[in-house]
Amino acid sequence: MEPVGYRQVEVTGGFWGEMQRLNAEVSVYNIHKRFSETGRFSALKCQKSENKPHIFYDSDVAKWLESAAYILAKKEDAHLRALAEEAIGDICRSQQPCGYFNSYFQVCEPENIFQKRTEHELYCAGHLIEAAVALKEAGVDEKLYAAMCRYADYIYDRFYVKKDAAFTTCGHPEIELALLRLYEFSGEKKYLDLAMFFLNERGVREEEHYDWATRRYDQTHLPVREQKEAVGHAVRALYLYIAMADAARISHDPALVAACGALFADITGKKMYVTGGVGSTFHGEAFTFAYDLPNTFAYSETCAAIALALFCGRLSRLQNKAEYHAVSERVLYNGLLSGESRDGKGFFYVNPLEFHEGIYDYNESLAQKLYCPLPERVEVFDCSCCPPNITRFIESIGGQIYAAEGDTVYVNQYISSRTRIGGAEIEVESGMPYRGTARVCVNGRIGLRLRVPAWKGGVSMRVNGRRVQPKIEADYIELFCDGDIAVELDFKMAPYFVYANENVFADAGRKAVAYGPLVLCGESCDNGKNLRAVRVRSLSGAKAAEGEFFTLEVPAERLKTSPGLYSSAPPAAEKFTLKLIPYFLWANRGKGDMQVWWL
Amino acid sequence: MEPVGYRQVEVTGGFWGEMQRLNAEVSVYNIHKRFSETGRFSALKCQKSENKPHIFYDSDVAKWLESAAYILAKKEDAHLRALAEEAIGDICRSQQPCGYFNSYFQVCEPENIFQKRTEHELYCAGHLIEAAVALKEAGVDEKLYAAMCRYADYIYDRFYVKKDAAFTTCGHPEIELALLRLYEFSGEKKYLDLAMFFLNERGVREEEHYDWATRRYDQTHLPVREQKEAVGHAVRALYLYIAMADAARISHDPALVAACGALFADITGKKMYVTGGVGSTFHGEAFTFAYDLPNTFAYSETCAAIALALFCGRLSRLQNKAEYHAVSERVLYNGLLSGESRDGKGFFYVNPLEFHEGIYDYNESLAQKLYCPLPERVEVFDCSCCPPNITRFIESIGGQIYAAEGDTVYVNQYISSRTRIGGAEIEVESGMPYRGTARVCVNGRIGLRLRVPAWKGGVSMRVNGRRVQPKIEADYIELFCDGDIAVELDFKMAPYFVYANENVFADAGRKAVAYGPLVLCGESCDNGKNLRAVRVRSLSGAKAAEGEFFTLEVPAERLKTSPGLYSSAPPAAEKFTLKLIPYFLWANRGKGDMQVWWL
Repeated sequence: MEPVGYRQVEVTGGFWGEMQRLNAEVSVYNIHKRFSETGRFSALKCQKSENKPHIFYDSDVAKWLESAAYILAKKEDAHLRALAEEAIGDICRSQQPCGYFNSYFQVCEPENIFQKRTEHELYCAGHLIEAAVALKEAGVDEKLYAAMCRYADYIYDRFYVKKDAAFTTCGHPEIELALLRLYEFSGEKKYLDLAMFFLNERGVREEEHYDWATRRYDQTHLPVREQKEAVGHAVRALYLYIAMADAARISHDPALVAACGALFADITGKKMYVTGGVGSTFHGEAFTFAYDLPNTFAYSETCAAIALALFCGRLSRLQNKAEYHAVSERVLYNGLLSGESRDGKGFFYVNPLEFHEGIYDYNESLAQKLYCPLPERVEVFDCSCCPPNITRFIESIGGQIYAAEGDTVYVNQYISSRTRIGGAEIEVESGMPYRGTARVCVNGRIGLRLRVPAWKGGVSMRVNGRRVQPKIEADYIELFCDGDIAVELDFKMAPYFVYANENVFADAGRKAVAYGPLVLCGESCDNGKNLRAVRVRSLSGAKAAEGEFFTLEVPAERLKTSPGLYSSAPPAAEKFTLKLIPYFLWANRGKGDMQVWWL
Repeated sequence: MEPVGYRQVEVTGGFWGEMQRLNAEVSVYNIHKRFSETGRFSALKCQKSENKPHIFYDSDVAKWLESAAYILAKKEDAHLRALAEEAIGDICRSQQPCGYFNSYFQVCEPENIFQKRTEHELYCAGHLIEAAVALKEAGVDEKLYAAMCRYADYIYDRFYVKKDAAFTTCGHPEIELALLRLYEFSGEKKYLDLAMFFLNERGVREEEHYDWATRRYDQTHLPVREQKEAVGHAVRALYLYIAMADAARISHDPALVAACGALFADITGKKMYVTGGVGSTFHGEAFTFAYDLPNTFAYSETCAAIALALFCGRLSRLQNKAEYHAVSERVLYNGLLSGESRDGKGFFYVNPLEFHEGIYDYNESLAQKLYCPLPERVEVFDCSCCPPNITRFIESIGGQIYAAEGDTVYVNQYISSRTRIGGAEIEVESGMPYRGTARVCVNGRIGLRLRVPAWKGGVSMRVNGRRVQPKIEADYIELFCDGDIAVELDFKMAPYFVYANENVFADAGRKAVAYGPLVLCGESCDNGKNLRAVRVRSLSGAKAAEGEFFTLEVPAERLKTSPGLYSSAPPAAEKFTLKLIPYFLWANRGKGDMQVWWL
């Protein structure tokens, strides 16, 4: 299975075209501004300052650089290029002669370089390597690439040859997937060897970890091939699984393939929110146990959603199953996009599925606060991993659309775009996520496989204007194209209920309302308070509208009781119209209550 | 309104007779054993030891002594008397010549006597004063009473006359209610003055408090007469409100009467579990905000339930309203009794309304644990306030039953007992809490007011064997008795649903099942796991049985879905028989899931 990378694909407009425009014009600049204000860029100069850098600042900058690379790959932007070059210049100038670079350790703890397993050193290195590959691949810059190859060589020397670092594997996976990316880009086998070393050494011995965490937290509880259940810090876990999937593909290792399959099944069958969010607890930002998916105190970190989408993409390169793309789609339009505000400036780190202003306000009234999700997105966090992770993901979304296998081309996501694969030109025009229609035009001689979304209300197809009964195999419509072919698809988008598995105790007796790939939510600014007592019996009569926001108006009831605290009189039902919007758009109109699961 | 104290009332058998037997034979001895093992009794000797006493040890011992006083008032027990006398002797020997006694400060921080407002010094003094009054009142001991009067005199001198302590009011209310009790027992006005001083000075200035808490935590945010909403640490709050109610009665202060009324309305109208538990968060063991009553992470401390019952009792002395006794009854048979195990040895500090073994087990697997209620009762806690609070409450429950106003006698709780009021003898035989029948026999010439329980399925009455239509006024049956009268009552106990107010977001769309005064719960040992997905549509066909446990079998359904995590297929309903038991008996058969609120 050959991927069709983002560089081969032009996103031509539509929903994601607009997201990319916002990303390139607003988000990437605003993040740069906030990162500058907080000292993330100046830290790259590696000079002592009052503003002590955080241990993970380099990774934030690296993801920003990676975003810039993807933007510049598509369209020149002299200002953005200058900002990127300044950062690259600082990194290269600060890099030690041996190849080492870390803006925190060089300045604050030079004596502890490669001594502290928990302190994100190789995690930062991994993100810098990813940025370097992206920059070179995009034709934007070669300096950082050269510098990071030297850094990778140095890591190889210290960890793999001399083995004189104080730890074997990094507390936060990322270096493994970065080295595999570097290997596949460069063809240098030593990077593959080093990645496989880090993967193979993980979980085989006791290594330093936070004293407040167990070995499950950073996935060192078992050798990677024996890991069948997703545990611990969700982003750490998924970055590791991504590397495992890449390694499985590169090395044809059946034990790794099986582990990846088991982990995917465990996550998507037992530990994933309906929004595609994962990692349900703030404590260790972690996976918990099967079916434990609390809504109000959900963690569901934006980075974990991104990582799940990336993991799905990597799994599909092992075998292009529709279910991987269905999960990706769920993540993309819900738990991932919810991480960004409509204006492209604000970000959520945490993505709850229910919000009670009362809980937040009470918590704010305390002298010592407890964990509580934020009511509105903010522009920067102390740990600001999510914002540049979103921008790099949005900018490289072209890579999520197509795949090829011999003469067969797969369309996995309906995102308006065009590409050229082999001798064929393919263009997709899509109404997603608000309309279930798509037009796929092909010029060439190829087999075409068009994914049928899991949410389809039906499938109708016209080929060059003529109605054709689609042949569907394993959730793909199969066609053979020769010449100029226009395929018009309609998957009949309509609102539908989603029920969680009976074991998801947080959602028992409740249902979510979805519309195509979108999970919908209701907010108090549209519906008044006390959303928990709103009952939706049926979706017949529901009305969708595309205005400033997409909205779905649903006939609903509000349970009304007598004013006392307890009563033996059953509640009455007061009819009203519930106004739902896409979950990813919540909290764009001020602080208020929000809910996904209804009675 | 004259109370009829526990000393005037003999509990003659039935449910509470058995509780008192267990209390006197098992609980009080077992608590003594555990308190001895943990150094609580040896600390009274005030000698340096490796086992540093806690700041609140004296209060634990004091409540144990108070329990012993109530037991010995009824029946001689030489062994118990010897244990009590040993403790009393140690306290008296350790008391300083000035009258001061505190086993922690005298030994560990003598330089800080009356310097640290947050460290429970006057709280301990208050409980010792209560114990001393109980011991003298019971005719058991006068030494502690004399000693504690000297201590109270010393507190009066330091806080009220010289005002040379480092604080004005104690961080944990209790001294106020204790001084009022001492005043009413002794008639010494200085104790009333001191109590009123502590009440009047509270909340009028900034005083030392924990830096992790606000002034609401210990109810110093407002002068007491302006406190209309229950806030902060629930036990602190209710101990303060008890003193306010007593002070309101003694001083005929309308502002205090109004404040007590508002606080009662706020608690019982917005902040009380269906079990009568209060204080819904572990963080500060506190009241939170209106209608915030989470079930799984409920705090609902046993001591707070006890304090609410005591507050209701105090309010009824201002005006004998049925609602006070209805709340008391709710507390007694549910959130208070749940604090004790069936064998009388184990205790819950925290009383959740829902328990998920999975959440507990996951939490136990963490290196750094979060707050999570315990699955089973334990015999002693580090902070072991609840066990001796239960024993003193059970032993003095006789004082909850009757009240008198001129020639009228009120029967407020149906607890098998007899008393003599004025020239009349009154005897109650009751089937509570499992049967709604009661027989009230009177010999004398009195007006009789028999409370009609809020849960009544009906009321039927026979007087001397003849069916009589009861005259009900403000939830009391009114009768006039002259001579030998036997009143047979049947309040038609039957299972019924309870619905929480529409704003209680934790319970929306759910219902509890109750039977008379009992809130019922289901456990996984009877019903399998996944109680959240159990639906109860109707109680017709429900079967009650009194075996080892009282049980109610209810036709129910289990929601069943396809095995996937999310599906658009609505769940099917699988019929089964749900077996419910009284909430207070949960967790007596090992660790498992438990639930009160059903779909």
